[in-house]
Amino acid sequence: MTGTATDVVLTGATLLDGTGAAPLPDAAIAVSGGRITWVGPAAELGRSGREPGTELARGERRQDADGVGGREIIDVSGTYVTPGLMDGNVHLVLNCDPEILLAYDPGHYDELVTEAAQVALRAGITTVFDTWGPLEAVRRVRDRINAGEVTGSRIFCAGNIIGNGGPWSPDFFAAYGEHLNPATVERVNRHWEQGVGAELTWMPADDLRGAVRDYIATSGIDFVKYASSAHAHYRFLALSPGAQRAIVEEAHAAGLLAQACALTPEALKTTIDAGVDLLQHGNSTGLHPIPQETLQTIVERGLPCGALIYTDRRLDALRADPGLAAPAREGSVIKKENARRLIAAGAMLVQVTDAGVFGPRARTSPWVGQMYRAPDMPISLGDAHILWIRSAIEAGMAPMAALVASTRDVARAYRKDDQFGTVEAGKHADLLVLDADPLADPGNYARIAHVMRGGELIDRDRLPERPVLTRDA
Amino acid sequence: MTGTATDVVLTGATLLDGTGAAPLPDAAIAVSGGRITWVGPAAELGRSGREPGTELARGERRQDADGVGGREIIDVSGTYVTPGLMDGNVHLVLNCDPEILLAYDPGHYDELVTEAAQVALRAGITTVFDTWGPLEAVRRVRDRINAGEVTGSRIFCAGNIIGNGGPWSPDFFAAYGEHLNPATVERVNRHWEQGVGAELTWMPADDLRGAVRDYIATSGIDFVKYASSAHAHYRFLALSPGAQRAIVEEAHAAGLLAQACALTPEALKTTIDAGVDLLQHGNSTGLHPIPQETLQTIVERGLPCGALIYTDRRLDALRADPGLAAPAREGSVIKKENARRLIAAGAMLVQVTDAGVFGPRARTSPWVGQMYRAPDMPISLGDAHILWIRSAIEAGMAPMAALVASTRDVARAYRKDDQFGTVEAGKHADLLVLDADPLADPGNYARIAHVMRGGELIDRDRLPERPVLTRDA
Amino acid sequence: MTGTATDVVLTGATLLDGTGAAPLPDAAIAVSGGRITWVGPAAELGRSGREPGTELARGERRQDADGVGGREIIDVSGTYVTPGLMDGNVHLVLNCDPEILLAYDPGHYDELVTEAAQVALRAGITTVFDTWGPLEAVRRVRDRINAGEVTGSRIFCAGNIIGNGGPWSPDFFAAYGEHLNPATVERVNRHWEQGVGAELTWMPADDLRGAVRDYIATSGIDFVKYASSAHAHYRFLALSPGAQRAIVEEAHAAGLLAQACALTPEALKTTIDAGVDLLQHGNSTGLHPIPQETLQTIVERGLPCGALIYTDRRLDALRADPGLAAPAREGSVIKKENARRLIAAGAMLVQVTDAGVFGPRARTSPWVGQMYRAPDMPISLGDAHILWIRSAIEAGMAPMAALVASTRDVARAYRKDDQFGTVEAGKHADLLVLDADPLADPGNYARIAHVMRGGELIDRDRLPERPVLTRDA
Amino acid sequence: MTGTATDVVLTGATLLDGTGAAPLPDAAIAVSGGRITWVGPAAELGRSGREPGTELARGERRQDADGVGGREIIDVSGTYVTPGLMDGNVHLVLNCDPEILLAYDPGHYDELVTEAAQVALRAGITTVFDTWGPLEAVRRVRDRINAGEVTGSRIFCAGNIIGNGGPWSPDFFAAYGEHLNPATVERVNRHWEQGVGAELTWMPADDLRGAVRDYIATSGIDFVKYASSAHAHYRFLALSPGAQRAIVEEAHAAGLLAQACALTPEALKTTIDAGVDLLQHGNSTGLHPIPQETLQTIVERGLPCGALIYTDRRLDALRADPGLAAPAREGSVIKKENARRLIAAGAMLVQVTDAGVFGPRARTSPWVGQMYRAPDMPISLGDAHILWIRSAIEAGMAPMAALVASTRDVARAYRKDDQFGTVEAGKHADLLVLDADPLADPGNYARIAHVMRGGELIDRDRLPERPVLTRDA
Repeated sequence: MTGTATDVVLTGATLLDGTGAAPLPDAAIAVSGGRITWVGPAAELGRSGREPGTELARGERRQDADGVGGREIIDVSGTYVTPGLMDGNVHLVLNCDPEILLAYDPGHYDELVTEAAQVALRAGITTVFDTWGPLEAVRRVRDRINAGEVTGSRIFCAGNIIGNGGPWSPDFFAAYGEHLNPATVERVNRHWEQGVGAELTWMPADDLRGAVRDYIATSGIDFVKYASSAHAHYRFLALSPGAQRAIVEEAHAAGLLAQACALTPEALKTTIDAGVDLLQHGNSTGLHPIPQETLQTIVERGLPCGALIYTDRRLDALRADPGLAAPAREGSVIKKENARRLIAAGAMLVQVTDAGVFGPRARTSPWVGQMYRAPDMPISLGDAHILWIRSAIEAGMAPMAALVASTRDVARAYRKDDQFGTVEAGKHADLLVLDADPLADPGNYARIAHVMRGGELIDRDRLPERPVLTRDA
Repeated sequence: MTGTATDVVLTGATLLDGTGAAPLPDAAIAVSGGRITWVGPAAELGRSGREPGTELARGERRQDADGVGGREIIDVSGTYVTPGLMDGNVHLVLNCDPEILLAYDPGHYDELVTEAAQVALRAGITTVFDTWGPLEAVRRVRDRINAGEVTGSRIFCAGNIIGNGGPWSPDFFAAYGEHLNPATVERVNRHWEQGVGAELTWMPADDLRGAVRDYIATSGIDFVKYASSAHAHYRFLALSPGAQRAIVEEAHAAGLLAQACALTPEALKTTIDAGVDLLQHGNSTGLHPIPQETLQTIVERGLPCGALIYTDRRLDALRADPGLAAPAREGSVIKKENARRLIAAGAMLVQVTDAGVFGPRARTSPWVGQMYRAPDMPISLGDAHILWIRSAIEAGMAPMAALVASTRDVARAYRKDDQFGTVEAGKHADLLVLDADPLADPGNYARIAHVMRGGELIDRDRLPERPVLTRDA
Repeated sequence: MTGTATDVVLTGATLLDGTGAAPLPDAAIAVSGGRITWVGPAAELGRSGREPGTELARGERRQDADGVGGREIIDVSGTYVTPGLMDGNVHLVLNCDPEILLAYDPGHYDELVTEAAQVALRAGITTVFDTWGPLEAVRRVRDRINAGEVTGSRIFCAGNIIGNGGPWSPDFFAAYGEHLNPATVERVNRHWEQGVGAELTWMPADDLRGAVRDYIATSGIDFVKYASSAHAHYRFLALSPGAQRAIVEEAHAAGLLAQACALTPEALKTTIDAGVDLLQHGNSTGLHPIPQETLQTIVERGLPCGALIYTDRRLDALRADPGLAAPAREGSVIKKENARRLIAAGAMLVQVTDAGVFGPRARTSPWVGQMYRAPDMPISLGDAHILWIRSAIEAGMAPMAALVASTRDVARAYRKDDQFGTVEAGKHADLLVLDADPLADPGNYARIAHVMRGGELIDRDRLPERPVLTRDA
Repeated sequence: MTGTATDVVLTGATLLDGTGAAPLPDAAIAVSGGRITWVGPAAELGRSGREPGTELARGERRQDADGVGGREIIDVSGTYVTPGLMDGNVHLVLNCDPEILLAYDPGHYDELVTEAAQVALRAGITTVFDTWGPLEAVRRVRDRINAGEVTGSRIFCAGNIIGNGGPWSPDFFAAYGEHLNPATVERVNRHWEQGVGAELTWMPADDLRGAVRDYIATSGIDFVKYASSAHAHYRFLALSPGAQRAIVEEAHAAGLLAQACALTPEALKTTIDAGVDLLQHGNSTGLHPIPQETLQTIVERGLPCGALIYTDRRLDALRADPGLAAPAREGSVIKKENARRLIAAGAMLVQVTDAGVFGPRARTSPWVGQMYRAPDMPISLGDAHILWIRSAIEAGMAPMAALVASTRDVARAYRKDDQFGTVEAGKHADLLVLDADPLADPGNYARIAHVMRGGELIDRDRLPERPVLTRDA
């Protein structure tokens, strides 16, 4: 089903290697066994004992008979090569309207997850971190992709946000929970809750600790996420400081990173104090800006901060929308201002989008339809990451820094920078080859010549292989 | 898939032939080519040139080598044979909860319809009249059953109730329509509406007439049903007298019977004046009893009246339920009192149940769950018909008359008594063989020895072949 | 409290007498005992034995010592005199938000009614027909105004719209009924229902006839209004044709006019057939235009038609509002087109506005707030009548005809043209004196010099005497 | 309006002095200047230089000419005297249905507060602590009672629960907020919020501290209460530990006690850590029992614990009610079990009832109506305190201890035991004289002979002087 990684050399491109180093023109990147084996000026390729690529027409692939070990040489002159992009916060199943969850229930969520992983990969995002989803389906697809049985973005997943109920619980879209058959609502919610749902918010910290320990031990998750702020009523703390500390301790004891979603200044502070490794929505502080002291702590500790930011164009439209609740409107503006201050202070902001896949009917969806009221809808997987980079630049980040924030720093935030996030020898061969300079215009991230994942060149035209939500209505 | 009708003779049973005639003990019923060819005392079977059945153990079937044309003789001594039962008002898709319509949408409603037709047949109901359903699926299954491709009750169908919106429109369960994606709601509703939905209630009668004419010409329906009373707000008239007359005229012009659902005294009168052939829910007059003058008209015209009646046990429980709206509570009592008066006055009451198939989760269904608040839930296909007979007897109908009302008179009401409804030579061989006398106790309609439909003995244990709603949860 | 009618002569104005006759320049209108006693060219005033008015400064009043019987002569040269305006459909209590009905409950609705009658009078509307309101309060204020104890527009009232529930019932704003204490909801609704509410829609026509007869006999109403179309779900008929005829017959038997509110083509036809004397909202036919045949019947019978029409400016805004339900949007356009056709065909359209008093908080009212989404909010008492005239002219009515439709024809529709509606000898002295020609611009109806009601010159600056809703927030 | 305190001696009763001491038969209590001046055996009265009371018929009052300073002697032989009861948590305006708040808005809440203070006093509750109410009205009535202008229970008040929105906000009865005019909703809520409402939950702790400081400085409150748990979604923390500490510190800095409402084990722990002086609902820990460690802390610190407890009769009914949400049902059982454990461990449980005044329409109130689904409705001022005592005894408290918990310990919890709560010389003369022994049966607290407040014998038959909610419907 999926191609086989071959040994190739990409030559001639300008390399933006994800470290923030100056662009390297006419670079060569050698790939073997799914890894990058050598990176440097193309001119140096021969000197180190390897055969240079011969002149090829742009985009042509040729088996170089002279190569070592049958290595294919691809001349990508005129293009720009970056690390495959990484998104630190996606939801491979995000539109939880009944028409979707019921039609694909019970055994077909895998199709939704697979489509999303392929939509992401098609857009050049070679690794995604799913921070809330129906665990079993996400895990199955993750494993199939890892096993090479299915093409798609590499997935790391958290399962449930510990302490939150499922999609039709009061923590998310309560209206569905109130109007559908309770037995069905409970069954659907369980796909997400996995024993660490809302009931944990009622528990003494000691009981909660045990439930979390069990979850970590049996769920096969890659990292831990919990609800610091309540999701639907987000001025409240979902979990006490003691409970938060217990979760972080259990994660660390199991060798996993812990992150949390905090949405007010006090929740953010509580989260930092609990010892999390990554602040999800770290720039979302509701109706009040992030306090200066908290900001300083983030900077000093080098605490990675997954920032949700919207384009100025979107913010202008939100501000002008009288139908929008004040918090939603003001909150978005404050988020961006927080991002600006974090960037200026030298915090480590990384790309997170909260994105998922939406199809033709999403505009009228009770669940996510309102996101379309303003332009630059920011959570649609496939272009959300470009809007993020544009927004980050508007907030003061240099274009090169925005690239680093979308590659190496995501990997760092998740402590996977030894494997991913840069174009350096030894890393996984996840590459994005662009026809135009992404530093000149974020829109150029969409001008994709090639996507390579794990050394495999992706046939993007085939993705998604089985369109589900992205089918025509 | 389905068995083949064979030529058989049933002998030894007590025959209740559906005409109201006195029971005939030790009867013989000869079946050939799917029709009843001879009925009479078993003793007379030989005299008319046919071979008598030899002694067989109860329930044994044997190929009688001496028979004419390989006729099988079945000794059913000790049993009671009635015509196959008929239900003048069922809904083969009735539970319209999203978990059902979305999970089986778009092409799988057929499975629901097939299951329902088999649940009915298993219970001895050989013919059903579907008076509101997703037309295309009902029609497909109807045709497959008629073609012998699928086993099930014989179906006649009306498609939509003209003037009503679909199941998630304000005319039925508005809450779904308000909380789901409008694009999906519209799509689902269209399966029912078929171009003769709510928009017809806005029309001048002339425009409506054209729409109805088109519907009749193209829909393949068997009879016409329209909304005299509004369905959800049933104190209102859904269609004006002029519009009602137009519908009846168009039905008659096309050779179809017309029926309507009226729910108040004034709607009932309007419906009768419009010239309908059958009053659906003719005993449902809301908060006021049926006026004497209207009752007399029904009797004098011999207008068939499909009556919804509940058991006294259920009425007692409804009366005692403080959570129930007064109209629902009082209305049920008035329905039964109306039935009593209609029976006493000699009106032609026929069995209609409004029944459909419900599964294990129906008790918590927002759509039908409240029907379970009181015992003797009256609309569950498979036992609804027995509750109806019990209720009719409570309302003053003789047990034999109740049988006739559930067989011949349903056929008469639909002008199909030349084909169905009695055990008489020339009729379709639809038979119910019971192990105990149904006149002694309506519960005996459940003690089924055999069901024959169109001359075919049904293997009841196989039904439904593919359980959908009736599966375990 | 209220002034005393004096004998006066208004001289020098251009008279638009409400009959449609050509304007009469330099007219004189003599008033005595609350009635108009003589109308003609000022120059003729002396010839018939009366003393002419002497030269007065504009607006000055002077006791003319030379007059007959102490008659006051008022020189209103340069002004335009019309009959006092009449509105064939107002609601003196219209904003039924709980904050109003509960704060002024139980005994204080009179204050709301009084304020509304004074707001109307201040605007030159000397007579209003209240077609739905809390009967007891409206009646009390009506009687006080008639007795001269209170200043205000002359009121005629219908009490309830027979067949409709009260303001918090499902027929009006169901959300209040669903969320407030049921005991309180019932109590408030009863102020409107008066025994002829929703329960009548359940009744056989004979029972309904008795209830209506009692209501007419005991309620002290001036005319009868019933619900032909259901109010909230207006594609339905609220009352059967038989019930409608019964109501009209009872009204006529008691010497009262009958009107009905019909909102679809079929309801309109049913209403006409029932024999009503006035069609309320006669141009409102929902999603389909008024059928030509029905239109002809209206014209041929000279059936008065109270038309609801919006300005083109408003219609443009409604058409462009994506948040508005299609029926509301299209329905308004069809209303205007119906009005245009009725006018062109020579039907008798009369001014009805449905207006009531709104205060500063009405814009956020769940009850009426949405009316403010488009400009030219058409139901605010005090300027609704001017918007009506502007709309009627847009629909093809000549300015003079629009004045007649707002004066004499309202009186005719209510068969009170022997008393009101024109400036002719013998009529009540209800006059509007304007500083600019209303035929030139409907906005000039707001440039009021004087309002006279029953011969009394109104001190408009004092009105409303006790502001309630019109108070600052 | 209110009586004048006179100098009296009560003699002959059995004294239960609120300290837990053994009952003193044939006691004498001398009152002067509103204070208790002497308490002891009646026989000792003369010895200390005072004249003994002479024999009086039971209940008779006589001016003892021989007394010192005109002291009145009242023989109350056969009765039982206790301190006036104290309720540590009432809401003098509790039923916040629109029909009440709108009808009595804006200036008439005082009438509601006064009625409640009089209902309490009539029942023998001489002091109440209002922990959530419309501050301005409560304060005005408090001051009038203190000034002797109005009769009623002595009031101490907290105003708002810091961090909670008003009664129609999402924190209380959201349905009203969603269905009424937003401008009115905001205005009503402000009566409660007083600048320390929901907006504080969004704030960084430093900003919150300033707002609380302002509130304490300007509001005239007697003690501080804040929301530790969110009120409507009570599994969440409303305020972070840092915010909670800031509030407690500000209260203490101003010399006020601080209390909080915690509803889960973690919230309870957070509240204790914040340093509060009183745990409101200290036995309410949601779906999990109070952890043993927390319980020990409460005992060791002697932290007063206002316990909400229901009678076993009520709990049985709640357990059997299928319509009740599991948390509500189980939570009530856990509350009682918590109370049992706290009592057994020697914690200081004090009487708090959350009670307010309800009238005839309260049973159908959307706000509080569901409290009536089970017997022994526990929050109706006037008998709630007796149900509390009964419940406390069921939970293992000795009858004498339950009296102390309802008198002296409430005073202690609020650090007012130097002034109130016992029958000891020097204390305010707040006395309850009962016709039967309350230790024998809590129901005897309703057999009231006399209530004295501040030395004044209350004419109970006159209370409430102006019934509002307690009027007949």
